Amino acid sequence: MNGKAAHRVVIVGAGFGGLNAAEALAGASVRVTVIDRKNHHTFQPLLYQVATAGLSPGEIAAPIRSILRRHRNVEVLMAEVTGFDLERRVVQTADQEVPYDSLIVAAGASHAYFGHDEWETLAPGLKTIEDALEIRRRVLLAFELAERHASAGESRDPLNFVVVGAGPTGVELAGTLAEICRHALAHDFRSIDPRLTHIHLVEGGPHVLPAYPEDLSRSALQQLQRLGVEVLTSTVVTQIEPGIICMGETRMKAAVILWAAGVAASPLGKKLGVPGDRAGRVLVEPDLSIPNHPEVFVIGDLAALKDASGKMLPGVAPVAILQGRFVAKLICRQIHREMELARTSPAQPEPAPRPAFHYRDKGNLATIGRAAAVAQFGKIHISGFMAWLAWLFVHILFLIGFRNRVLVFIQWAWSYATYERGARLITGSTSLPGWSGLHSENPGPSEAEQEMSVAIHK
Amino acid sequence: MNGKAAHRVVIVGAGFGGLNAAEALAGASVRVTVIDRKNHHTFQPLLYQVATAGLSPGEIAAPIRSILRRHRNVEVLMAEVTGFDLERRVVQTADQEVPYDSLIVAAGASHAYFGHDEWETLAPGLKTIEDALEIRRRVLLAFELAERHASAGESRDPLNFVVVGAGPTGVELAGTLAEICRHALAHDFRSIDPRLTHIHLVEGGPHVLPAYPEDLSRSALQQLQRLGVEVLTSTVVTQIEPGIICMGETRMKAAVILWAAGVAASPLGKKLGVPGDRAGRVLVEPDLSIPNHPEVFVIGDLAALKDASGKMLPGVAPVAILQGRFVAKLICRQIHREMELARTSPAQPEPAPRPAFHYRDKGNLATIGRAAAVAQFGKIHISGFMAWLAWLFVHILFLIGFRNRVLVFIQWAWSYATYERGARLITGSTSLPGWSGLHSENPGPSEAEQEMSVAIHK
Repeated sequence: MNGKAAHRVVIVGAGFGGLNAAEALAGASVRVTVIDRKNHHTFQPLLYQVATAGLSPGEIAAPIRSILRRHRNVEVLMAEVTGFDLERRVVQTADQEVPYDSLIVAAGASHAYFGHDEWETLAPGLKTIEDALEIRRRVLLAFELAERHASAGESRDPLNFVVVGAGPTGVELAGTLAEICRHALAHDFRSIDPRLTHIHLVEGGPHVLPAYPEDLSRSALQQLQRLGVEVLTSTVVTQIEPGIICMGETRMKAAVILWAAGVAASPLGKKLGVPGDRAGRVLVEPDLSIPNHPEVFVIGDLAALKDASGKMLPGVAPVAILQGRFVAKLICRQIHREMELARTSPAQPEPAPRPAFHYRDKGNLATIGRAAAVAQFGKIHISGFMAWLAWLFVHILFLIGFRNRVLVFIQWAWSYATYERGARLITGSTSLPGWSGLHSENPGPSEAEQEMSVAIHK
Repeated sequence: MNGKAAHRVVIVGAGFGGLNAAEALAGASVRVTVIDRKNHHTFQPLLYQVATAGLSPGEIAAPIRSILRRHRNVEVLMAEVTGFDLERRVVQTADQEVPYDSLIVAAGASHAYFGHDEWETLAPGLKTIEDALEIRRRVLLAFELAERHASAGESRDPLNFVVVGAGPTGVELAGTLAEICRHALAHDFRSIDPRLTHIHLVEGGPHVLPAYPEDLSRSALQQLQRLGVEVLTSTVVTQIEPGIICMGETRMKAAVILWAAGVAASPLGKKLGVPGDRAGRVLVEPDLSIPNHPEVFVIGDLAALKDASGKMLPGVAPVAILQGRFVAKLICRQIHREMELARTSPAQPEPAPRPAFHYRDKGNLATIGRAAAVAQFGKIHISGFMAWLAWLFVHILFLIGFRNRVLVFIQWAWSYATYERGARLITGSTSLPGWSGLHSENPGPSEAEQEMSVAIHK
C-alpha cells in the first residue's frame, strides 16, 4: 500500500445493501467500518412472521458483528449516525466522528404516514424487530382483552383487525392474521370465537399488490378472500383514533390497526444535502454516487434511480444487494487504478469513467398465507401452492446464517403440519390503545366501547 | 351434578404450581379458571439462557391457553389480580370479580432488594421473560459501548460485570457470562477483547450455592474459577449507583450489575390477610390451606411450610408441581364426598380430616456452564460433566411442550458444538445506566467515567 494508510470505507446501515457491500469489500486492501444503530441485521421479508407469532426474533435476525466476524478488515460500530461533513469527509455520530475515504449510505426506509405522524402509535408499521414485537403484542392482547370482557358477561362481538395498504407487507399480514384466527387460535378461548374475527385489508388504489401484473393481483384477491380477508379497494383512510378507523363516511371500531401503506426514506438522506424525490430518496447518479461527490454512494431503499425503461427501481432486497456489490467493486477498481498510477506516474490521476448500475428484474414473489402466494418471473405468472413453494425456497435459501436457516425450516415444517404458532408471547406493556377503559381502577362495562363496527359499505 | 352449578376452582398464577393444579383438575367435574397477568408460562429454570442470549424467549415460554387448550373445563384469563374477598369468595381483578368455591393462590415470588428498592433499575433480577431480555440487552450493549469508546481512541480497559448472590441463579449467570466472553464474543470485536472481561460473583455468605452440601459448594467454586469467574464470598453489597457497586470500603466500576440475591413472595400473599413469614410467604396449614379457610390454598414459592424434619421446603419447581397436584386431589376428593353425602343424607356434611402434604426431596441440580454443574441425589454427590448431563436431561425432559423440547435440544447441540449464541439481539432502548455520558449531544471523552475498577480486596 506504498506506506499510505489503507483506504477507509464507511458503510452506514447494515441492511441488505450495506451488508453486501461490506462482504464484497472483505479481504480488499481497504479498512471497512459498518455503522448501524441496531446490533443486528434484520431479514425484513420475514418480519411479518414475527409480527404474527410464527417465528421468534432470533430466527430472522443475526448480530451484524457475528455475520462479519471472519473479515478482519471490517469493524462494526453500533451507533446512531447524526449527520455527515462531506467536505471534511467524516460521518458524525452522537459521540464521535468517523473519517472516510469512500462513504456508502445504505440507511433504508421507514413508514410514511402522509402528514399524519400522530397515527404512528395507533397504527404501527413493520420495519424493525421492535415493530414486529409491538404488532404481535397488540394482536395477541386484543384477543386476551376480548376474552376477559366476554367472560365478565360483556360484549361478545367479534373483533375487527384492519391492515392499511395492500402491498406485499399488507397482504402478508392480512392473510396470516386470517389464518391465525381460523386455526392457531381457534380452540384456545372459551368465551369468544377467534374464527369470527374480521380482517379488513384497506387499499387506496383499485387493486391489491398494485405493482404486480393484473392477473396476479386478481389471483391474490381471490386467495385473500378464500382465507376470509375482507378486502376494501379504492378506500382511503381519513382518520385514525384510539380503537377507531375512519374511511370517508365510514367509522369502524378496530381492536388493532396496522400500517403498511407508505414508505419514507431515512432522514439521513436529507443530511447529504443533495436533491431528493418526494419520498425523501436521494437522486443518485447512474453510478450510485451523489452529484459532485464521486466518493459518496447511496444504495438500497434510500436511493432513487430509474432503470433503462425509465421506471423507478423498486425498494426490494435484490436491488439493494446488487447495488451493494456494484459499489464495492467500483471502490476496489478505483483503489487499484490509483495504486497503479502512483507507481507509473506521480501526477494526480484523472477520474476514470465509471460504469452505470443496471438492474435486471429476475422476478417478484409475494406470499399471502399457507400455500397461497403469487409469483412473476418475466412473462411467467404463477399463483397458489406452486408460487408459495417458490417463495419458501427463495426465502429460506437467502436467510442469513446456516443455523437460522435450519431452525426456520423446522419451525415452518412444524407450523405447516400443526397450524401451531410457536412464538405467541405477549411481552412488555399489557395495555392497548383504545382499550383504556379496561385499565381504570374503577371498572364497569363501557357499552359504547364495546359497540363494534358500523356499516362498512354504505 | 344434581342440578347444581359445577364447583368453581380459581387458580391465581400459571407457574409450575398453578399449571399442574389446573392439569390435575382437567376432566374433573369442576370449572377451572386460571388467572395470570402474563399470557405465557415461563420455564424459569432456563431463563438464564435467555438472559445470556443462548435461547429465544419463545423457546422457554408457551402461551398458557395453548398448554391448557384441550381441557374443555379450564378457562384462562389474562388479568392482574388486585385482591381477594374471602367472605364473598371472589377474586378481584382490575375490571371484574371472579367467584370461586375453591381458590388456589400460586402467585410465586420476585426479587428482594432488602429495603433498597431503588437498586432494582440499576441491578435487575431474573424472574420474567422481560427481565431476561433486559439483562441480555444490558450485557450486549455494554460490549457495544465499550467497542465504540475504544474505537474512538478512548479507554480500552476491560469491562467489569458483577452478579450479586451465589445461589443457583447467580452461579448460572456468572458461569454463562464468563463462557460468552471467552468464546461466543471472543472474535467479534476489533478494538476491545471480550476475553479480558472480569466477571465478579459476590456472595454475602461464606460459600457459593449455600443450600448445597459443602463438598458440592467447593466443587462449584472450583468450576466457576476454572471458567474465569472471580468469586467474592462473605462480601456484602452496601451501595449501588449507576455504573458503580460498593462492597464496604470497596468501590468498583461495573458496566452491568445483576441481582440474584434475594427472593420476596408475591404481594398477593399479604392480601389474604393471614400471617406470613419475613419473606412475605404465607404460613399454610399442613394441607396447604390457610387458617380458617379450608377452601383457600396457597402453593409454590408463595407458601411457607416445614417438612417433617422442621426444615423449610425450598422454593423450587418440584415442590410447586407436587403441591399443585396435591391440592387438586384434595379438591376432587372433597367434591366427590359432598356428592356422595348429598345422595345419602341431606344434612350439611362435617369437614373430613385431610392428609398433610409431604415432600420427599429427590435431589438438587445446579448448572454452572458448559459441561459444568453439581448434583445431589440423596447421599450421591456428583459434579462436572456427569452432573451437567443429568441437569440437561432433567431440564429438557420437563420443558413444556414437545415442539419447544425438540428445538431447545437442537439449539443446545448447536451451541455446544460451536460455542455460538443464537439470540444475541439488542431490542428496546439503546441506553445503559451508568453510561449516560455517551448519549449527550456534546461528546468528548469523560476520563473519569472510563476509569475502571479499584482495588477489590484491600
